[in-house]
Amino acid sequence: MIGSLWRRIIGRPLASDQAAKEQITSLEGLPALSLDALTSVAYGPEAIVIVLATAGATALHLIFPITVAIVGLLAILVFSYRQVIDAYPGGGGAYAVSKENLGAGASQLAAAALIVDYVLTVAVSIAAGVGALTSAFTPLHRHTVSLCLSILAVVTVMNLRGLGESARAFLAPTVAFIVGIGAVIVVGLIHPIARHTAQPGHSLVVTRGLQAVGVLLVLKAFAAGCSALTGVEAIANGVPLFREPRVKRAKQTELLLGVLLVAMLLGLATLAVRFHIGPRSGQTVLSQISGTALGRNWAYYSVSLVTTAVLALAANTSFGGLPVLTSLLARDNYLPHALAIRGDRLVYTYGIWVLAGLSGVLLVAVNGNTDTLIPLFAIGVFTGFTLSQTGLVVHWRRRRPPGWAGRAAINGLGAITTAGATVIFLLTKFTAGAWVVAIAVPSFIVLFHRVRGYYGEVAREVDLDTPPSGTGAPLDIPTPQRVAVIVPVNGISRITAETLAYARAISPDVVAVTVRFEDEDDPDLDPAWQQWNPGVPLITLRSKFHSVVHPIVSYVDGQCQVPNSPGTTDAPGTILALVLIPVVSPRKLRHRLLHNQLDLALAAALRYRPHVIVARIPFQLRD
Amino acid sequence: MIGSLWRRIIGRPLASDQAAKEQITSLEGLPALSLDALTSVAYGPEAIVIVLATAGATALHLIFPITVAIVGLLAILVFSYRQVIDAYPGGGGAYAVSKENLGAGASQLAAAALIVDYVLTVAVSIAAGVGALTSAFTPLHRHTVSLCLSILAVVTVMNLRGLGESARAFLAPTVAFIVGIGAVIVVGLIHPIARHTAQPGHSLVVTRGLQAVGVLLVLKAFAAGCSALTGVEAIANGVPLFREPRVKRAKQTELLLGVLLVAMLLGLATLAVRFHIGPRSGQTVLSQISGTALGRNWAYYSVSLVTTAVLALAANTSFGGLPVLTSLLARDNYLPHALAIRGDRLVYTYGIWVLAGLSGVLLVAVNGNTDTLIPLFAIGVFTGFTLSQTGLVVHWRRRRPPGWAGRAAINGLGAITTAGATVIFLLTKFTAGAWVVAIAVPSFIVLFHRVRGYYGEVAREVDLDTPPSGTGAPLDIPTPQRVAVIVPVNGISRITAETLAYARAISPDVVAVTVRFEDEDDPDLDPAWQQWNPGVPLITLRSKFHSVVHPIVSYVDGQCQVPNSPGTTDAPGTILALVLIPVVSPRKLRHRLLHNQLDLALAAALRYRPHVIVARIPFQLRD
Repeated sequence: MIGSLWRRIIGRPLASDQAAKEQITSLEGLPALSLDALTSVAYGPEAIVIVLATAGATALHLIFPITVAIVGLLAILVFSYRQVIDAYPGGGGAYAVSKENLGAGASQLAAAALIVDYVLTVAVSIAAGVGALTSAFTPLHRHTVSLCLSILAVVTVMNLRGLGESARAFLAPTVAFIVGIGAVIVVGLIHPIARHTAQPGHSLVVTRGLQAVGVLLVLKAFAAGCSALTGVEAIANGVPLFREPRVKRAKQTELLLGVLLVAMLLGLATLAVRFHIGPRSGQTVLSQISGTALGRNWAYYSVSLVTTAVLALAANTSFGGLPVLTSLLARDNYLPHALAIRGDRLVYTYGIWVLAGLSGVLLVAVNGNTDTLIPLFAIGVFTGFTLSQTGLVVHWRRRRPPGWAGRAAINGLGAITTAGATVIFLLTKFTAGAWVVAIAVPSFIVLFHRVRGYYGEVAREVDLDTPPSGTGAPLDIPTPQRVAVIVPVNGISRITAETLAYARAISPDVVAVTVRFEDEDDPDLDPAWQQWNPGVPLITLRSKFHSVVHPIVSYVDGQCQVPNSPGTTDAPGTILALVLIPVVSPRKLRHRLLHNQLDLALAAALRYRPHVIVARIPFQLRD
Repeated sequence: MIGSLWRRIIGRPLASDQAAKEQITSLEGLPALSLDALTSVAYGPEAIVIVLATAGATALHLIFPITVAIVGLLAILVFSYRQVIDAYPGGGGAYAVSKENLGAGASQLAAAALIVDYVLTVAVSIAAGVGALTSAFTPLHRHTVSLCLSILAVVTVMNLRGLGESARAFLAPTVAFIVGIGAVIVVGLIHPIARHTAQPGHSLVVTRGLQAVGVLLVLKAFAAGCSALTGVEAIANGVPLFREPRVKRAKQTELLLGVLLVAMLLGLATLAVRFHIGPRSGQTVLSQISGTALGRNWAYYSVSLVTTAVLALAANTSFGGLPVLTSLLARDNYLPHALAIRGDRLVYTYGIWVLAGLSGVLLVAVNGNTDTLIPLFAIGVFTGFTLSQTGLVVHWRRRRPPGWAGRAAINGLGAITTAGATVIFLLTKFTAGAWVVAIAVPSFIVLFHRVRGYYGEVAREVDLDTPPSGTGAPLDIPTPQRVAVIVPVNGISRITAETLAYARAISPDVVAVTVRFEDEDDPDLDPAWQQWNPGVPLITLRSKFHSVVHPIVSYVDGQCQVPNSPGTTDAPGTILALVLIPVVSPRKLRHRLLHNQLDLALAAALRYRPHVIVARIPFQLRD
């Protein structure tokens, strides 16, 4: 019943040709690949404000110059990534680019950083979405964690159904979001409606600056604000999704994203200064800006709801990314192979579960609070940026197409600035949470190595050409000469009869065995067996010990010649023992308790013996 | 590793003839069978005091007349049970006696009441033992529940090892307990050492009586005090343990127990009145009495520690009782058959776990507080008393040995008084917790019926003589005519080679099958297979759906003629499909994650098909 309910939620299996093969236009590229980047305006400016507020209200105006610096970095990134699109029209994720140009070590670093990044994107987007919701509907604030987990659950189920990449369906909310933020900026710049109305919550700006406005503070604020740049690489990863001419369309989308992001960041920074926005309890910075610009009316609530919806969809885009990345890693033997298996809805089911699990744990750990997650964010992203830009420089140097020097210079500038930014993040945010990333990334790399090492050993061991240990000769597995079928029984019943019929079909060499304890009172099975006469001899194993398993295992061992050590070439005349265990199999799960599970213990004990095959023969009851 | 640690704790398997077959003397009967009864002086008087204290300090002296009434009831019970020993020298538990004399219904009631009683004995004894310990060492008070569970764990492990019934080892602490309580009474009556020293804790006696001293209060106090009588039936259950002449020795022990219990109860009641004992926070009544009599010195601490130890051993005696009772019930098909299986240490392992689990839950539920448990106690015990005395009356009437009328009169008196007491318990303690028992006992009886009903159905269904549904003819299971072996493969490796060797040994009719998804990029397996040429054809199943399981299941279904409905007589020429699934089996559990578990999904999908046998062939890796 639970199984069929789950099937209803997830949907029927899909045929391979039913896979969504949408081909998207430049505009559709925004909802499909850029939601993470676009929606980062919901938490980027906030991250800057929170850092600046530690130096008191007078420092808050610094948001504008810092945003200008971030926008400058964004411009470099947009042009760098337009070149990535040129160079890798097949999709140039940081993992693929650094694997090709920089070698295995760099690609593992990129993969680890990307995994951390995807998980954080999900957590930050959902937390920020819930933040937008609870800023508008303040009584919901104390349900923050439950709201976060509910949204995560919905997004996870959507992706298990395989609805993850529905660019067209996401276009409307994306446009609504851009229009909404645009309206906030335009109205705010021209004629703010509620400029002097008090916003809910109380101010969290320290009344006397605890910290001088120095270089370190500015760097910290810059580092925090760079969280607004996460996601600009996604378009370059998804080039194959575009309709032809794909490279051109993808580059258009990248430029469109850059322009929109620059406009929104600068607009919001201007308004933040104009409205003297500082952190407030229970209110996000975006909520304060739009509340001040529009007033807390239907327009404000619409913007808030759209923001929540689009942030949830932004989390959704990570679900498009991480399972694909982990499937590539699994194919390269860096992660468990199960991650490369597509489920019957044609999605990488295990990858989706891993992402949902990790981001769920993270959301619970930080209580759904964006501010705690921001310091962890951006480090992974910028590591990926640096690696793929560096990889591009190597790429241009190797290929040397016309104008390669200029192209290499652009990507080189991108690599240097993002590397510089990464160092700034690590230094300024280390104690605030970046240490988590500094531990997580190397741990993933160690994991990759150990997984790959294990698979290598397994491959050598199961390879037909590898000589088995100790002999030096290649393996030649002889066919056993005789099959002895052994049926453990504890009575005469239809179950026994059925199993014996199967046994006789397989081999003429069948025995039934039963175990009798020396101190048992029950009558011997032998006379009844003689009377039934099923054509199979019954052997009674007598035991001083109260264990059914051990006497049968010893008997089976006696039936087949066990070689001295596993893997050596067997002497000719090996006997294969096939143990068929009759099992009563009730239809209702709770009835299992009423049957002793000796069959499982026996099967487990026999499982790893060479030349022994164990099968449980279930006799299904009607009830 | 965990397995071998557990083996170290539990001990090596024992041979049947290594079962402890101590034969005990009359004196050894006390530690072996009477600890529950003897140690009930640790909580019986306390239960009376707590009820009386609700009517204020002036009511406390009523403990003496109430104890006299309880001692009277005890005398009747001791003589009744001496007659039970005469009548059932083979061991006369309430279940066996009522089954023989009163029929199935009464025996089920007795069994249900006894199960409740055993669980409560464990919980009350351990809680009272910890109460004695924390009264002496007051800082331990806040660790009450952990201490209770630790003692429960030690007792459980001891019993899983099969050390449960070591009468000789328990003799010393039992004698120490009797001597200690004796010393408290003698010193307290003659020359109490610390009579006027304040005891720790604060008084819990209400300063103004909330309740008039009426018949109801006295009845309530009597009912509470009857918890001191639990366990007097145990000697009659254990007659076979005694050395010959067993009946005589058992009767001596019963009498000895009666005399000791009467002396201790009357002595403690006298001291309680003399010392004006009332309930105190963190102090048991016994602790106050012995502290006042002896002073809180080494002698007091010794008595407390011995009391704790002996109460833990009293809990232990339930572990000797319940598993035997549930094994009898399992043999009568009233409980899961697993409860009748003896483990390799010759004990009824599952029964021990059931008792440990239920009493652990109970201890946690009441926070290790004896006072909460006492109202639940005694109802089960006295129901058992009533049923076995009534059974004895029937027994004497049927057999009519010389002097049967007198004997029947004694047991009749026992039956009437205990039945009366049971009614008093139910009425006076119903809201205080007895309702739990009033629900638990009928629930157990319903459980017995449903389990028995299920086993009855199964037996009819698997019986060889029962005609299978629909046909009317007795079952004649034909031997399938041909065995088709199917080996699902996903590559060429030593694992495949080994499985194919086994397959060829079983039948000449072997095929390997592999599944290929239409959108897969990997190269076809066919050419490599042709080159390897293992002598077995490879069939490639092409699938539009991303599931390995379904194509293989369909293929297997196509190979064997499936009858229209399970259980009908098969057409001649049935084919038995034997599916051998090669499996990589890593030695370390954590490495399992690195292998996809498709084999399990496939085995599960094929398991319940008629004429299909599934076996997984593990290839064990070295590391």
